[in-house]
Amino acid sequence: MANLSTQPYKGTRDFYPEDMRLQKYIFSVWRTIAEAYGYEEYNGPTLELTDLYRSKTGEEIVNEQSYTFTDRGGREVTMRPEMTPTLARMVAARQQELNYPLRLYNIGNRFRYERPQKGRFREFWQMDVDIFGVEDISAELEVIKLASNIMKAFGAKDEMYKIRINSRKLVSLLLGEYLKLDIQDALRMTKLIDRKDKMSEAAFAQQAESIMGKDTDKLMALLSIKSIDGLPADVIESGTVEDLRQLFEKLSAEGVNNAQFDLTLMRGLDYYTGIVFEIFDTSPDNNRSMFGGGRYDDLTAVFGAPSIPAFGFAYGDAVMSEFLIGHNLVPDLASSTKVAVLSIGDTAETAQNLSSELRKAGINVALDTGERKIENKLKATIKNKIPFAIFVGEEEAKSQMYSLKDLKSQKEQKLSTADIVQKLK
Amino acid sequence: MANLSTQPYKGTRDFYPEDMRLQKYIFSVWRTIAEAYGYEEYNGPTLELTDLYRSKTGEEIVNEQSYTFTDRGGREVTMRPEMTPTLARMVAARQQELNYPLRLYNIGNRFRYERPQKGRFREFWQMDVDIFGVEDISAELEVIKLASNIMKAFGAKDEMYKIRINSRKLVSLLLGEYLKLDIQDALRMTKLIDRKDKMSEAAFAQQAESIMGKDTDKLMALLSIKSIDGLPADVIESGTVEDLRQLFEKLSAEGVNNAQFDLTLMRGLDYYTGIVFEIFDTSPDNNRSMFGGGRYDDLTAVFGAPSIPAFGFAYGDAVMSEFLIGHNLVPDLASSTKVAVLSIGDTAETAQNLSSELRKAGINVALDTGERKIENKLKATIKNKIPFAIFVGEEEAKSQMYSLKDLKSQKEQKLSTADIVQKLK
Repeated sequence: MANLSTQPYKGTRDFYPEDMRLQKYIFSVWRTIAEAYGYEEYNGPTLELTDLYRSKTGEEIVNEQSYTFTDRGGREVTMRPEMTPTLARMVAARQQELNYPLRLYNIGNRFRYERPQKGRFREFWQMDVDIFGVEDISAELEVIKLASNIMKAFGAKDEMYKIRINSRKLVSLLLGEYLKLDIQDALRMTKLIDRKDKMSEAAFAQQAESIMGKDTDKLMALLSIKSIDGLPADVIESGTVEDLRQLFEKLSAEGVNNAQFDLTLMRGLDYYTGIVFEIFDTSPDNNRSMFGGGRYDDLTAVFGAPSIPAFGFAYGDAVMSEFLIGHNLVPDLASSTKVAVLSIGDTAETAQNLSSELRKAGINVALDTGERKIENKLKATIKNKIPFAIFVGEEEAKSQMYSLKDLKSQKEQKLSTADIVQKLK
Repeated sequence: MANLSTQPYKGTRDFYPEDMRLQKYIFSVWRTIAEAYGYEEYNGPTLELTDLYRSKTGEEIVNEQSYTFTDRGGREVTMRPEMTPTLARMVAARQQELNYPLRLYNIGNRFRYERPQKGRFREFWQMDVDIFGVEDISAELEVIKLASNIMKAFGAKDEMYKIRINSRKLVSLLLGEYLKLDIQDALRMTKLIDRKDKMSEAAFAQQAESIMGKDTDKLMALLSIKSIDGLPADVIESGTVEDLRQLFEKLSAEGVNNAQFDLTLMRGLDYYTGIVFEIFDTSPDNNRSMFGGGRYDDLTAVFGAPSIPAFGFAYGDAVMSEFLIGHNLVPDLASSTKVAVLSIGDTAETAQNLSSELRKAGINVALDTGERKIENKLKATIKNKIPFAIFVGEEEAKSQMYSLKDLKSQKEQKLSTADIVQKLK
């Protein structure tokens, strides 16, 4: 038989400890900020019946990009391409018993059969953050602040990203009552505006004409509006933008300075019903949307449950790590192991006992009692990013004083076990 | 269209925050102990080419219990039923660059299409712990101590579990040279002994006869041996049990008192080549194997890589939580949220500012500025297992002194923000 390949399945990644350190760092910052705002972690199955996604997720994803198959019992199942349908199912299942405001987050993997490319994988990780049961804009305020604080917790400065905010209710009003498009045309126009940044002005104008006819001046005038106050007077007077105005005021009062109104922001998904937002990387090399979310108030209805107000976003690991690498924000990530205890000569038992003592004091220890040369043991320690080494030779075993070496500063000291504990804690 | 079901896919679980707390507790203890011994976390893809499992995993699992399907590109893929094949692939891919001893652990989900029953799910979580590059029994000593320390870290007493240890080399010697079985019959006998506890004595004797003929006395005598010294003299003299003897001595010297020799322990998997072990629940209600592992030295050969000594085990989440529940070892698990800030009347802004202050001090805060009655807000806080509540009424907003209530002791105090921080940190 030919040898098996050592490559991972196409579009997926192996995470060796050094890759895992970066991912764990990202997850831990996500977790810290979500929990600071009172969000609790939940999880659901990797597999769901395909019908769940048929009712919730875009057709393109289910029909062309999902991992869908028939299980051994004849059920059609799909590996989750996103978390929101599972979350909606879980909330609907216990809608009466759950306590509101309900704050939930999940960090887990999702699966899409797409052409692998830079920053896009067939298995990727996402954090989903959602709040249920809050109708007023305190939900928007909290979640957008949380999203912005995630960026700040990674060391991002205000100028490295901007927060674009829009309202789907406002868009409906403008396309329907102001531009007089019917529901079908308004939907087509929404999708066209969503792709505006990815096409030439001429192509956009042509496609806009094919939807609404020659007279696109009013549309173009709308799309050039850069602030709420630039909107048509009757739209402002209708009160539709009051929530947006308040949201911007409160964000600014709480020190979020890089939020801006953007009437072209749509956030593809069909289920958004109110305010939508997006975090945008301003770096010239990587000028693009990083993540976003919005208000969706009708998601549990498909289970026969009453509708419930909700606001949330999802954030991918690959986009996050590219942002960190692009802006030089990845910190020096050491091993979870604090010290390697390296025995030289016939000192295995002493090294063993010393390791046990250190572990009892809460220090993570990798013990090496093998017969390789000490240079090789030390080299492996450094490569594994372990910050300290202790040498246990026969003299040290006798005197119970051990050489502790700081592998960064290269300084070495002879210390008792108690002093080593104090130094490493 | 009929309403969608809110049930999870058969054999899988939804983890609401209260379920997640127990799982996170289990994972965090696993992680703490594995890292104390210098193991670093890795991960691999959920999907692998099915051929990887064909070469490594038992036929029954691949052919009858796996989630196997053809992807949109025509590749036959399987959702991982276990982690070891992925790990072997990853180690083989970088065998030259990796640093030994190489200590790795993974905590992640696995998938098996089995009939769901108590403690057995179609999606379950496991910790895998493995050390590579150590030929002598210091690997066994370290990993078995680590496994035992996991039990202790969960609060298990020595008498709640025992550690059964055997040697596959010894079993080969006894079945081959001592009982004179050929390789095929020895393998059948191994599998029969593996199932011994699950069948009657008569059924065992009958099947043993069908393998080796009428004269099963020598076999029965062997299987009744309870200590290394009870083995046939020529087996002891051959040196085959020296490593076992040393292992028991060292385990005992390091305070592991519940390890015992068990010649009937086989640990199903075909790839074990040396010492095997198992942690066994001694509770009368749940008397069974919890988890185990062993030495496997040839696992990377199938990739064309040189073989490399390895020792490891895998441990499931459902078995662990049943042990904890059965022995009453589940601690009181609070929410990750420390305090709920509950505004009463027109105090949303004050409550908001107070929450921001507390978060800056590293305290996890759930803010509730909604218009529900304060009794309902408090009830939701208690149900969500948040240990403290702060009431922000109009008087408190004016005086900047807030009522902090400890929801366990029911004590309430009026405190400044600084005092609240000090109290909650």
